[in-house]
Amino acid sequence: MEIPVVGAPLAGGPSMPALVAAVSEAGGLGFIAAGYQTVDEVRREIEQVRAKTQRPFGVNLFYPTQLPAEEAAIAEYAESLAGEEQSYGVPCGEPRWSDDEWEGKLGLVARARPTVVSFTFGCPESPIVERLHANGIAAWCTITAPAEAKIAAAAGVDALVVQGSEAGGHQASFNDTDEAPVALLPLLRLVRGVTDLPIVAAGGIACGEGVAGVLSAGASAAQIGTALMLTPEAGTSVPQRAAFAGDAATGLTRAFSGRRARGIVNRFMREHDAAAPKAYPQIHYLTAPLRAAARSAGDPDGINLWAGQAYQLAKAAPAAELIQRWGAEARAALRP
Amino acid sequence: MEIPVVGAPLAGGPSMPALVAAVSEAGGLGFIAAGYQTVDEVRREIEQVRAKTQRPFGVNLFYPTQLPAEEAAIAEYAESLAGEEQSYGVPCGEPRWSDDEWEGKLGLVARARPTVVSFTFGCPESPIVERLHANGIAAWCTITAPAEAKIAAAAGVDALVVQGSEAGGHQASFNDTDEAPVALLPLLRLVRGVTDLPIVAAGGIACGEGVAGVLSAGASAAQIGTALMLTPEAGTSVPQRAAFAGDAATGLTRAFSGRRARGIVNRFMREHDAAAPKAYPQIHYLTAPLRAAARSAGDPDGINLWAGQAYQLAKAAPAAELIQRWGAEARAALRP
Repeated sequence: MEIPVVGAPLAGGPSMPALVAAVSEAGGLGFIAAGYQTVDEVRREIEQVRAKTQRPFGVNLFYPTQLPAEEAAIAEYAESLAGEEQSYGVPCGEPRWSDDEWEGKLGLVARARPTVVSFTFGCPESPIVERLHANGIAAWCTITAPAEAKIAAAAGVDALVVQGSEAGGHQASFNDTDEAPVALLPLLRLVRGVTDLPIVAAGGIACGEGVAGVLSAGASAAQIGTALMLTPEAGTSVPQRAAFAGDAATGLTRAFSGRRARGIVNRFMREHDAAAPKAYPQIHYLTAPLRAAARSAGDPDGINLWAGQAYQLAKAAPAAELIQRWGAEARAALRP
Repeated sequence: MEIPVVGAPLAGGPSMPALVAAVSEAGGLGFIAAGYQTVDEVRREIEQVRAKTQRPFGVNLFYPTQLPAEEAAIAEYAESLAGEEQSYGVPCGEPRWSDDEWEGKLGLVARARPTVVSFTFGCPESPIVERLHANGIAAWCTITAPAEAKIAAAAGVDALVVQGSEAGGHQASFNDTDEAPVALLPLLRLVRGVTDLPIVAAGGIACGEGVAGVLSAGASAAQIGTALMLTPEAGTSVPQRAAFAGDAATGLTRAFSGRRARGIVNRFMREHDAAAPKAYPQIHYLTAPLRAAARSAGDPDGINLWAGQAYQLAKAAPAAELIQRWGAEARAALRP
């Protein structure tokens, strides 16, 4: 990387191939978000990125951690969404578990050979890491706690994406506990205490001074997601773009997906957060039709408005311009 | 400051005059924590610090913000602590409001003229800032949100102590809302967007690389509290020192004081967090005898174990040694 900025994989729409390619072409490292997509869709995205840039890029996969989920709690939550079904005019989806085509996607990346494959929600076992290495692919694991960093280091990964509590979207924790997640700066130093692996710092970074901050604190690069969501290349929905212009707080919730994720607080979150069970991705599939309908209707109050704690700093500018600006700002901040 | 480290004011015991003087004498800026003390006690602490060092130091005052508190909720919470009274063998205290001898302490600092007076829980009005300035004293205000930064800038303060969500002890917010507090790195950049005032970054910083991180991100200094609590100069209780050796998560709670504060999760927090009302300092005075009894009994499960999110990095070494080590680590991290 010429500029130590990784474009965060933003599953569910924003990480379009145009965004991935623009980040890499500008000197950063773009990431395809394979989550929620079919193997064929991911294959096409890889082709589309390669058509736009010769530079390195990465692919992010959801590790298929299956945590215990109570069927009764899922059913009860589904019933509590009857009013939403009525007001958006669509039925809820089937609250199914899915491994997100795990084996198929592992096979795809082994053949397509992106420069990096990163993992979210768990750590790949050593044989998977070795298979990636055998194909010349670096393996990164996203972690949210020192204990997870130790597991990932033992599995042989090449770098850790250290995700702080301030990050938008899902917390990548291997388990979905109620423990308060740790913020990036203390987490980064706690993780450095247990491993010397290179660290990609993620969460709440939205400008070059933020990049400089994590580099000085010991990271090798900064992963930025939210601050790329207003770029023309991103697939961010129109109502979500509009929500970024406001000043509402963000919060962690399981209301949309059954797993803790950070978004701008809206009506759906306020009304359903307390009742939402731990059941991922079952609740993701349950609420998907409601969210799609709200999105089509341009209603920000029914959408998962994923955003990190510095979302107000996001700018509506081309991705290449932002990556280069952040690189210049970081260099200036590091040479006082 | 020779070393850009401020010793955080740790009210309730840890910030002993010996700690304040050691931090200043080592090249940082020590802070007396006037909160919960009488004017006479604070006067004696100032004298004790001056007897140990000629260097600059600061005094921190609690701004007497009186937020609405429901008497019924306070009474109900008091009743719910009957089991604690029985098991610690002491009655709860009187849940009174107090302005913490505000006028007396303002008069004291105007006469004693420490280099800096910082404020927590609110912003002093312009005439108070002007009175400090007229006496050659700098005024700093602790803030937790960009809106608070604007208020403090308008009041004419000289610097902002920007406190992130990762900080141990009380969140210094002007109001005690349920909004998720913002982590230090994004908060620092959001605050920089509304004011050019010098920033002292606070929360979760426990080593020189952490200091370097916030300096690169735009702060002028780092305020460190938790990482000074195991020093021999600190008045940290024996059971709290023992709790630092563990690995329990921290969490925010109103259980001990009626205001959101971060501590190591223990039995008292788990059992009483959900029922605790917003009523500060009433609940502080209500639970004080219970906490004192638990402290005397060496029972960490009945104490407010205030600690920031990086408390596991705290080291049992003399304060001067830590300040100098952090200065050296920060310099090394900033000159790669």
